Amino acid sequence: MSKATIKKVAAEADVSTATVSRVINDSGYVSPEVRERVFHAIAKLNYQPSAIARSLKQDKTFMIGIIVPDISNPYFMGISRGIEDIVGQDGFQLMFCSSDENSDKESRLLQLLYEKRVDAIVLATSGGNGETIHKLANSGQPIVLIDRKLEGQWDARPLDLVAEDNAQGAYLLTKQLLEDGHTRIGVVNGPARASTGRERYDGVRKAMKEHGLDRDPLLYNGDFSTEGGIRAVGQFLKEKSPPSAIISLNNKMSLGVLLELVNRGLRIPDDVAVASFGEVEAGNLLKHPGLYYIDQNPYDMGKKAGEILLKRIRKEEQACMVHIYRNEIKRIP
Amino acid sequence: MSKATIKKVAAEADVSTATVSRVINDSGYVSPEVRERVFHAIAKLNYQPSAIARSLKQDKTFMIGIIVPDISNPYFMGISRGIEDIVGQDGFQLMFCSSDENSDKESRLLQLLYEKRVDAIVLATSGGNGETIHKLANSGQPIVLIDRKLEGQWDARPLDLVAEDNAQGAYLLTKQLLEDGHTRIGVVNGPARASTGRERYDGVRKAMKEHGLDRDPLLYNGDFSTEGGIRAVGQFLKEKSPPSAIISLNNKMSLGVLLELVNRGLRIPDDVAVASFGEVEAGNLLKHPGLYYIDQNPYDMGKKAGEILLKRIRKEEQACMVHIYRNEIKRIP
Repeated sequence: MSKATIKKVAAEADVSTATVSRVINDSGYVSPEVRERVFHAIAKLNYQPSAIARSLKQDKTFMIGIIVPDISNPYFMGISRGIEDIVGQDGFQLMFCSSDENSDKESRLLQLLYEKRVDAIVLATSGGNGETIHKLANSGQPIVLIDRKLEGQWDARPLDLVAEDNAQGAYLLTKQLLEDGHTRIGVVNGPARASTGRERYDGVRKAMKEHGLDRDPLLYNGDFSTEGGIRAVGQFLKEKSPPSAIISLNNKMSLGVLLELVNRGLRIPDDVAVASFGEVEAGNLLKHPGLYYIDQNPYDMGKKAGEILLKRIRKEEQACMVHIYRNEIKRIP
Repeated sequence: MSKATIKKVAAEADVSTATVSRVINDSGYVSPEVRERVFHAIAKLNYQPSAIARSLKQDKTFMIGIIVPDISNPYFMGISRGIEDIVGQDGFQLMFCSSDENSDKESRLLQLLYEKRVDAIVLATSGGNGETIHKLANSGQPIVLIDRKLEGQWDARPLDLVAEDNAQGAYLLTKQLLEDGHTRIGVVNGPARASTGRERYDGVRKAMKEHGLDRDPLLYNGDFSTEGGIRAVGQFLKEKSPPSAIISLNNKMSLGVLLELVNRGLRIPDDVAVASFGEVEAGNLLKHPGLYYIDQNPYDMGKKAGEILLKRIRKEEQACMVHIYRNEIKRIP
């Protein structure tokens, strides 16, 4: 079957294409009898009015594009679910794109979503695109940042944001390990391109300094992936004096840390204690791991981001909307 | 800054909008001098030619839409990565949508992607949309099914497919548990709407029948979620004679089964043995769980799906392309 076109529908209904267009777009007067004939023709030919053509007229696509650095991270999926539960009520659909912590790929995706005329972009940036992001925002593209701020000079300029107090969370985790008597602590850091990587590391350093530890800690620069956590443990254990505790600055690296410690036959926490920025569900498979974690609330963050998105799309708010969550430390006993 | 339009660019360059259009689309003759003027105007006004307008002309959007029932399942993300690594080389971008095992939502997403003129749709169906899917395919929309076949009469009609031999995998797992001496086996099934749910259950029954077990097994109808696995264990343990082994028919339910068995203080496999359709990475956190699993190869499946997609989009192949993977049983010792 060849694709139905507006011309074929018009011929079938014996009306002009302009009339078919009026019926589809529900604009202008069309007699009930003609309207019915057009609908019959549409049904018979299985005609699908082009959404592209329609979106040019309505100036709304009801699509919200969301770019995250790792689509398989349950944290970002929790945020997405929260967003969807809010904006879905108003008929918006989410389209997900994964930048894989790659600034160039993120830049291409931003451009693509902008060109597709999405009604808004939600972005957890992999870094490096401050100028592009502000250009898009300045040209009228609604953008809501989640989880991560922009870098350097770009952070000072107003953009909507839903994020966490990363420095505070990492500070709490580190303080806890220090109070438990650990002084040799391995830190598995995220990439410095990401504000979450930078701020969390600052929190670690602050707690250590307060505790009189002024030297640089044992550090592994990870990439927020499970493999990063695995490699970090490998590196730490090569040290002459390996750490008695590891603090891992995101949930996926923490899973890697746990997997590799177990793989090497080490007991958690007796041989090595672990603290994680973000919950690791699988940690519950361990017997009494004493695992400290920052209890993130991605679903709530998503709902907040969804509310901000709707206000921004409807132009109900002029000022920049920023919401920072302060999260608590918890423990799997 | 108000949004630059083709009109403003034309005014700035002192040419007609048709000339701007010719420059943007690289069609028709434009003198080098005028071309340079147009490019200067585009740069000065930060004009972004509408991709929508261009796609109407070029009849290619370089977008591939992918609908999966659970975007947070590492299995589907493995497939997606394989697809992306193949089609990305040719400039196609993936847009992900999550149907949440909901047929109605899937139907809306299919319609949306079709209207957005994606160059192809990749679908792991939640079931119930056989007619819609064939209508779209018949109207010329390239569709490649992954992981799951259509239901009933719709399965008999040709569509591209990359999937696994589900019955065979489930048969192997069940046979293994029976050979290990288990006769009281709890089965955590997926939804019957999904072909993976139906076929895997068939495989379980076949192995049991061959072993002389003709009665219906202890069954929990899950939804392929971690919570489903948790609830299944709760139900099985209420039985007068609880099972000595549990076979769980997807990876996320298997994680739930492991979490809940550990949560209730049961030893794996001494108290309850577990077999999983699909790898559960977190299972490596357990001490000698003796966990059987079907070793799926989502990344390879994705690469195969990517190759099929390119052939379909380029119309290099008339016949329907079907690839079924036969996977092996493995064990975490």
